[in-house]
Amino acid sequence: MAATTPKHTEGWAAYDASGRISPFIFKRRENGENDVTIKILYCGMCHTDIHYARNEWGITMYPVVPGHEITGLITKVGTNVSGFKIGDRVGVGCLAASCLECDFCKQSEENYCEKVQFTYNGIFWDGSITYGGYSSMLVADKRYVVRIPDALPLDAAAPLLCAGVTVYSPMKRHNMLHPGTKLGVVGLGGLGHVAVKFAKAFGLHVTVISTSISKRDEATRRLGADNFLLSTDAEQMQGAARTLDFVLDTVSAKHSLGPILNLLKVNGTLVLVGAPEAPVDLPSFPLIFGKRVVAGSLIGGMRETQEMLDLCGKHNITCDIELVKTSNINEAMNRLSRNDVRYRFVIDIAGQSKL
Amino acid sequence: MAATTPKHTEGWAAYDASGRISPFIFKRRENGENDVTIKILYCGMCHTDIHYARNEWGITMYPVVPGHEITGLITKVGTNVSGFKIGDRVGVGCLAASCLECDFCKQSEENYCEKVQFTYNGIFWDGSITYGGYSSMLVADKRYVVRIPDALPLDAAAPLLCAGVTVYSPMKRHNMLHPGTKLGVVGLGGLGHVAVKFAKAFGLHVTVISTSISKRDEATRRLGADNFLLSTDAEQMQGAARTLDFVLDTVSAKHSLGPILNLLKVNGTLVLVGAPEAPVDLPSFPLIFGKRVVAGSLIGGMRETQEMLDLCGKHNITCDIELVKTSNINEAMNRLSRNDVRYRFVIDIAGQSKL
Repeated sequence: MAATTPKHTEGWAAYDASGRISPFIFKRRENGENDVTIKILYCGMCHTDIHYARNEWGITMYPVVPGHEITGLITKVGTNVSGFKIGDRVGVGCLAASCLECDFCKQSEENYCEKVQFTYNGIFWDGSITYGGYSSMLVADKRYVVRIPDALPLDAAAPLLCAGVTVYSPMKRHNMLHPGTKLGVVGLGGLGHVAVKFAKAFGLHVTVISTSISKRDEATRRLGADNFLLSTDAEQMQGAARTLDFVLDTVSAKHSLGPILNLLKVNGTLVLVGAPEAPVDLPSFPLIFGKRVVAGSLIGGMRETQEMLDLCGKHNITCDIELVKTSNINEAMNRLSRNDVRYRFVIDIAGQSKL
Repeated sequence: MAATTPKHTEGWAAYDASGRISPFIFKRRENGENDVTIKILYCGMCHTDIHYARNEWGITMYPVVPGHEITGLITKVGTNVSGFKIGDRVGVGCLAASCLECDFCKQSEENYCEKVQFTYNGIFWDGSITYGGYSSMLVADKRYVVRIPDALPLDAAAPLLCAGVTVYSPMKRHNMLHPGTKLGVVGLGGLGHVAVKFAKAFGLHVTVISTSISKRDEATRRLGADNFLLSTDAEQMQGAARTLDFVLDTVSAKHSLGPILNLLKVNGTLVLVGAPEAPVDLPSFPLIFGKRVVAGSLIGGMRETQEMLDLCGKHNITCDIELVKTSNINEAMNRLSRNDVRYRFVIDIAGQSKL
């Protein structure tokens, strides 16, 4: 990859732990032989963006340009790129680089590579810090770029790049996607509502579990969930003990897994995809007495990200979004930190939509 | 099962939450058509015995006669019992009754039956409270009785009925028993030392992880473990990150699973077999970033208990025990609660051994 004149890019960055987002002009690398350049049209806002903007995980390199749910159009392709051409509708998710040589990379599980680098706040192969999708343009290695099916609008598809694959990957790995399988989805937010859509597309019986009674109608009437449990109602939770095959826990606040584990049948599996900063409480008894399983899962690899998008195209699955102007990112972040969004903010980077 | 004159049995019971053990004369049911009567020779002392004696789980029915690691000789067989005869060397573990009709009972996973009743502090089919092995005699339904192979001494075999099958069952279920598999054993106590013996018998590479440096020689020189990690040494733990396929966590004190999860390779499994009263801390990051798995496991079913004993007979696996007179049960319990035993106390119920 020849080093040539860097490009100036318009972006939006947090400069300190206040997390406040301000305009930021920065340089991206020149489009290398394996790269494509993408004019960014939309970028979803993930909870992770807040964690990094506010340095809540203690690893932020400021200024940080968040955003890893990116869709747009290709404007340039490297000499070594055969799979994409100018004008293609594409997406970039969480991954910017990985070692390419380990077993995980070879199996396209780049997300579990020990040397994986993320789309922002990572270190690219050339030593530069990565900047994310809250920006007008992105240069990305072709390996980490996926096609957006024509059936999917680029705004409502953007959050599939992170939220979508984060729930799809464990659903596939743990063999949840069989008709009749009884699935619980804890938390009806960005991840949870996509999980419900996948589950219904594959014929599962879905129970939404939430602390908020206001989610009941949303879950059952609008998203088609079969059942709703109010997790603060101990009697209701007890009545549903040992009824579910799987649970996807999308909650990123600290909580106890005990009441959720009790919902699982013996041998049932709970997959944790939310990432609470503080450890969650794991009581040993419901785990041991039901030989239950708690498994973690981190986004997804590139092959399954494309597979997930193709399935979304086939089943017409998109995220429910609220579009945000670039001038309103801070307001949206504040609302997002209160979970006041149904269900994902997507920034209209290029100002194409009437807001 | 015809109700006939109950028998008087000499036993040792706790009467209140002090947990102090005193002599107790009680009645057992008459030997029914499906029952065998066992003259108890030895009974192991499990941590669970202390929890019940002291009502630490809040469910003790006093007086409680603890003990679920029982070996002895059959003195009577019911008319419907064909598999056992008088004089047979047998064992009884944790299970006294189950529904016999559910899927778990049908697969001899009686331990996961919703109606399972335990050897003590349970309710038998006839409505009577069950009393355990700290007693001279036991009447047990044939289904919950196993044979002790001739190669195994009845004293050192007794703890296999609980400690042994508790580690064997998950080792088998999670496919750990392959030569070369890298296993970590957290805690070198009653369960842990048997896990090391099983692992070495099957050709695994075993790392013992302990808070106590004094266990190093024990683990590596005497039990043949391949490696030892001091869990309080963060550098040592970090140096062993991503090296183990499986971990058996036998610790019953509250602890964090984070440093242990980090020892596992991506996709690795930690099985929790200790039963801490307080929830353990489960940090989401090592779980999610390594798509690792935390699974629970509760003792074992009757078929696998017999299978485990037969394997122990073949590989000459017994527990390392310290024999205790019935007059010294309280002293042993106090030492057990401080983990001051290498590695299991076994009560010489019939006074056969020179102590």
